[in-house]
Amino acid sequence: MTRILNSYAFDRWFAPAAGLVDIPSAIDGRVVARTSTQGLDLGAMVHHARTVGGPALRALTFHQRADLLKALAAHLSAHKEALYALAADTGATKRDNFFDIDGGIGTLYAYASRGRRELPGERFVVEGGPEGLSKGGTFIGLHILTPLQGVAVHVNAFNFPCWGMLEKLAPAILAGVPVITKPATATSYVAEAVVRLIVDAGILPRGALQFVCGAAGDLLDHLAGQDVLSFTGSAETSQALRDHPAVSRNAVRFIAERDSLNAAVLGPDAVEGTPEFDLFVKEAVREMTVKAGQKCTAIRRILVPRAQEGAVIAALKAGLAGVSVGDPRREDVRMGPLASLAQRAAARAAVARIAKEAEIVFGDPEVVAPLGADAQAGAFMAPVLLRCPSPLAAVAPHGVEAFGPVATVMAYDGLDEAVALVAKGEGSLVASVCTHDPEVARELVFGIAAYHGRLLVLDRDCAKESTGHGSPMPGLVHGGPGRAGGGEEMGGLRGVFHYLQRTAIEGSPARLSALTGTWLSGAPAPVTAEHPFKRDYEGLSIGDTVETGSRTISLEDIEHFAHFTGDTFYAHMDEAAAKANPFFPGRVAHGYLILSFAAGLFVDPAPGPLLANYGLDTLRFLKPVSPGDAIRVRLTVKHKQPGRKPEYGEVRWDAEVFNQNGETVARYELLTMSARRPPAEALREAV
Amino acid sequence: MTRILNSYAFDRWFAPAAGLVDIPSAIDGRVVARTSTQGLDLGAMVHHARTVGGPALRALTFHQRADLLKALAAHLSAHKEALYALAADTGATKRDNFFDIDGGIGTLYAYASRGRRELPGERFVVEGGPEGLSKGGTFIGLHILTPLQGVAVHVNAFNFPCWGMLEKLAPAILAGVPVITKPATATSYVAEAVVRLIVDAGILPRGALQFVCGAAGDLLDHLAGQDVLSFTGSAETSQALRDHPAVSRNAVRFIAERDSLNAAVLGPDAVEGTPEFDLFVKEAVREMTVKAGQKCTAIRRILVPRAQEGAVIAALKAGLAGVSVGDPRREDVRMGPLASLAQRAAARAAVARIAKEAEIVFGDPEVVAPLGADAQAGAFMAPVLLRCPSPLAAVAPHGVEAFGPVATVMAYDGLDEAVALVAKGEGSLVASVCTHDPEVARELVFGIAAYHGRLLVLDRDCAKESTGHGSPMPGLVHGGPGRAGGGEEMGGLRGVFHYLQRTAIEGSPARLSALTGTWLSGAPAPVTAEHPFKRDYEGLSIGDTVETGSRTISLEDIEHFAHFTGDTFYAHMDEAAAKANPFFPGRVAHGYLILSFAAGLFVDPAPGPLLANYGLDTLRFLKPVSPGDAIRVRLTVKHKQPGRKPEYGEVRWDAEVFNQNGETVARYELLTMSARRPPAEALREAV
Repeated sequence: MTRILNSYAFDRWFAPAAGLVDIPSAIDGRVVARTSTQGLDLGAMVHHARTVGGPALRALTFHQRADLLKALAAHLSAHKEALYALAADTGATKRDNFFDIDGGIGTLYAYASRGRRELPGERFVVEGGPEGLSKGGTFIGLHILTPLQGVAVHVNAFNFPCWGMLEKLAPAILAGVPVITKPATATSYVAEAVVRLIVDAGILPRGALQFVCGAAGDLLDHLAGQDVLSFTGSAETSQALRDHPAVSRNAVRFIAERDSLNAAVLGPDAVEGTPEFDLFVKEAVREMTVKAGQKCTAIRRILVPRAQEGAVIAALKAGLAGVSVGDPRREDVRMGPLASLAQRAAARAAVARIAKEAEIVFGDPEVVAPLGADAQAGAFMAPVLLRCPSPLAAVAPHGVEAFGPVATVMAYDGLDEAVALVAKGEGSLVASVCTHDPEVARELVFGIAAYHGRLLVLDRDCAKESTGHGSPMPGLVHGGPGRAGGGEEMGGLRGVFHYLQRTAIEGSPARLSALTGTWLSGAPAPVTAEHPFKRDYEGLSIGDTVETGSRTISLEDIEHFAHFTGDTFYAHMDEAAAKANPFFPGRVAHGYLILSFAAGLFVDPAPGPLLANYGLDTLRFLKPVSPGDAIRVRLTVKHKQPGRKPEYGEVRWDAEVFNQNGETVARYELLTMSARRPPAEALREAV
Repeated sequence: MTRILNSYAFDRWFAPAAGLVDIPSAIDGRVVARTSTQGLDLGAMVHHARTVGGPALRALTFHQRADLLKALAAHLSAHKEALYALAADTGATKRDNFFDIDGGIGTLYAYASRGRRELPGERFVVEGGPEGLSKGGTFIGLHILTPLQGVAVHVNAFNFPCWGMLEKLAPAILAGVPVITKPATATSYVAEAVVRLIVDAGILPRGALQFVCGAAGDLLDHLAGQDVLSFTGSAETSQALRDHPAVSRNAVRFIAERDSLNAAVLGPDAVEGTPEFDLFVKEAVREMTVKAGQKCTAIRRILVPRAQEGAVIAALKAGLAGVSVGDPRREDVRMGPLASLAQRAAARAAVARIAKEAEIVFGDPEVVAPLGADAQAGAFMAPVLLRCPSPLAAVAPHGVEAFGPVATVMAYDGLDEAVALVAKGEGSLVASVCTHDPEVARELVFGIAAYHGRLLVLDRDCAKESTGHGSPMPGLVHGGPGRAGGGEEMGGLRGVFHYLQRTAIEGSPARLSALTGTWLSGAPAPVTAEHPFKRDYEGLSIGDTVETGSRTISLEDIEHFAHFTGDTFYAHMDEAAAKANPFFPGRVAHGYLILSFAAGLFVDPAPGPLLANYGLDTLRFLKPVSPGDAIRVRLTVKHKQPGRKPEYGEVRWDAEVFNQNGETVARYELLTMSARRPPAEALREAV
């Protein structure tokens, strides 16, 4: 019997009873699954996310949410073979699955790791430093980021049922925002299988993930100002979502990745015979054929110097001729079918539109002989290469996205024309520039950057390890301006911040320090009865301070330090030469001498909870120290952060070194590792 | 004769000949000016901005653009008295002008200073650090920000004709994006006067600023994917702009500040007699009456503990009774008229809607006796205070913005209820929390932060210097989610970044270093023939490197350093205790000893172009150094940045300290000041 796909709502599976839609296999058209959302209360799903999933996720810290993602990734990884098998019917080859399934799992891992490393062990982020708002320093501001209290609705495309879902899910969950995800129906059986694995794992809290398998119904009617709507797909659907009355009225955050006529530009230096020429051809062939060209990042426009046009076309033809099309499960097949017959019809129609301004130089969109499959029952299509003779005047080759194994070669005269041609795409997700000439790279990159979310500069130096034109990376922005939708996804924490609200907080330094757990200049800095280095991580409070005695720095100290360290810079050794330096009044102490003596003043020599000083940040020498000056230090606990191991915590101290006149001579942040109590003991203390 | 206001298009003034609209004075209804955009080619203005203004601005560096803003600010400041005089007819008192005119000029100054201090002397920004994308390190990525190549269209509200224009203009110009600004017609004579001053100053390049004085016509039809549309005003207009076909189709960046039912919450601790009670009342009265309450940030909802409701209302009534309404030019007048009779009618209508769920406890929207003015001819309105008896059930008091001197008092029971009531505003620009209790502050701030762009925590510690609930600050985000429009303005550089495109660049470290002028790990680091410290700023190239000889650190060195500096921490002095520390294999060298010896290895003692080491960034001690280990240093020019004075440049060095096994024991960025050549000499060298 054909599988009936379920939705997942209110933490239980919803099996549709009516309105079922058939989902055919891309390989042979047989019905793989059926689904429907008829009878599903989508408004109640939104409510469930807001009232159950949101509070549950917000109760966790970023680190705890990162751990959830890591556990999810491990669980999916252990079951990925089953997903591969299912994905064959979408047309995916083994190579395609690497991008979709392994890529999706890899993105979960990447966000798990980034959440642990780059986000605090808190429920909010302090973004940037304090802003002074008053002369006396009693009124300041800073920015915090907190999770939006709504739901993230993710509407995905059919081409990456796994990656597309997980690359949106990971940043939202890490941010603390529950997700309702809706796959494209055509490949929803893969997405449903992924969701089943996630649900079975029992890792996510209740309400954190819901799944709409089938039509979206009135889902968007329920969105409000704390919600986020993220979409990947066509420009038409994107516009309809963006202009939906509830979305528009409530200023729902909207992220879109849509049509993109991505270009690859061969530099004039990269003539036949250079490594870059070969790399360019290989990349173009790969981009045309991975996922049968059904990638929003695929190369659609191949821009080459006029003198190279013939050679490039010949090489591309040779490359494309080697791409075997057929049943994606066969080892000897490199490219499977498109996702559906409808997709093939759309791609053929797009080719026909482009072909009005270009000639087909390789392949026939109507003719294909798939290995081990039927050309009519399956959605197979041969790679098609076009050549546009007048690219500056042409319209369709820059504006019509043939979502299949299709690209158009265009010759350019001069880099300015190449830049102008790229810009005719009116905004793309990505472009590649293939050159080994620094000036060519500079002109092209800065000429076209504003039109792109990502640029690959491909050359012999990076080719071996390059992840390729078509692969969005978790640490880099994915999205582009204009035609590409104006959205941004991933980009490391940038993708997480879309789900957080940025709020400027104004108040006194004392209040803002207390609220953020970060000591700020002007906040109380009580000197503790015992040296704070004698306090363990749990025993330290933000603001705890030690004020040291003072030490006079003599000329002998400076000379001694110079000869001992070898740092005999003239500013320390030669009165006349030092005076001639615009920054010094005469001989001055070494900055490192000040730092070392400062440590000598504040260090507590005996073994204790402070284990190590592992670094310094933002050290500035603000005033020269002359022989005879006396320095003293004020050291204040600025911030605490759990370490990677439960035994230690990282403590950041504000260190300010003063001279005998109370002027600041140096300021820096000192980083130490302090011992933590065993959890049980910490708990006893807390009770 | 009545003044005819002009538009400014294609770098010349456009005097309208037909379709003129009368603009009445808010004080007495006489016609102050007339304007129209009939006959103005708005599409050509967009084209002019893109083809003339954009290229001219993009040819400048951020620092040069910052200097333009500073010069503009100085010019406007010298002529501000003339603006004050004009603004009286908008209803603005002297106090109101301080916010609008001085506030606008101050914002220009703030962005000028920020551009110089926080942006590079380049035409692009490198955002964040490099992202490793490969095991071998030959393929990496990083993000750059470059100016969008379109136009910024700014549609402003009537309430701040000067500030509203300049706070949008400053970030766009600093970003390198030309501006077409459209004031609200009601107060456009003030905006026109500001633009005349700007044009007369001759500071901005051609095409950088154009001015549409009157109806916007088909302006939006011409917008495309590189453009930005920024709006302040009503929710209805905002929605119309956002859903405009060209804006939607081309994913034009859209920033909106619109209706906002801002709340102020009195903490339960702030009972009558406390400083916070008095501060709260004073702030609420001021927010209701500054600009006659026509501020998108004004307090509309006054939330108080039920027990304090009577006392608060009594105090507010007393405060409001002291607010004299009348001709804004009079010294004894504290509040002027609304901007127009239409605005007064709208405000009265809004009060009527709110009054269905609330009672008026002070003032009569229909009755006013203005000092020195006629109550019917001028748009005067008395302050109106309402009290809502059932705020949890009420709708209008949370959703209807009476854009005038109007606010509603609501009592709450418990902090959870206060949070819920604030959230019923569905997103606001700002809220205030008035409390001196840390726990109250924490519960309220984290409870409502996600619904706001800014929060003021007002208490006795900051009140004297507080800039107040209603004042957006250039360094802090202005904008709010949901009903407030979901936009963000200012926030320091954040506001500039809305006009830049973020692009991830992938490639080899060598290529990315060359493109960004920033040395990245893995890029070539050629050892220079002479010590790079002997090279002046101009003579240094990114990547220039010195590799030092090595120096063995003996146990005697460690002991000597310990006794000399006073840093006798056990990890350096006591083998058994050091071994017991989880981070150390036994006694180890001081971090500061490593740093000092490293300097001794790389320093060049004789006077030369390197003038001073003024700081360090991101120092990390990565591996312990034991007695007998030998260290050496590699120092590489990472980045160069012009200094504040033309005589010096700031050079950032990547410093890596290795042990005898080639392992990195410490890494940091060293900051030096290097001498620059006199401009004439540098020029000669360059020729």
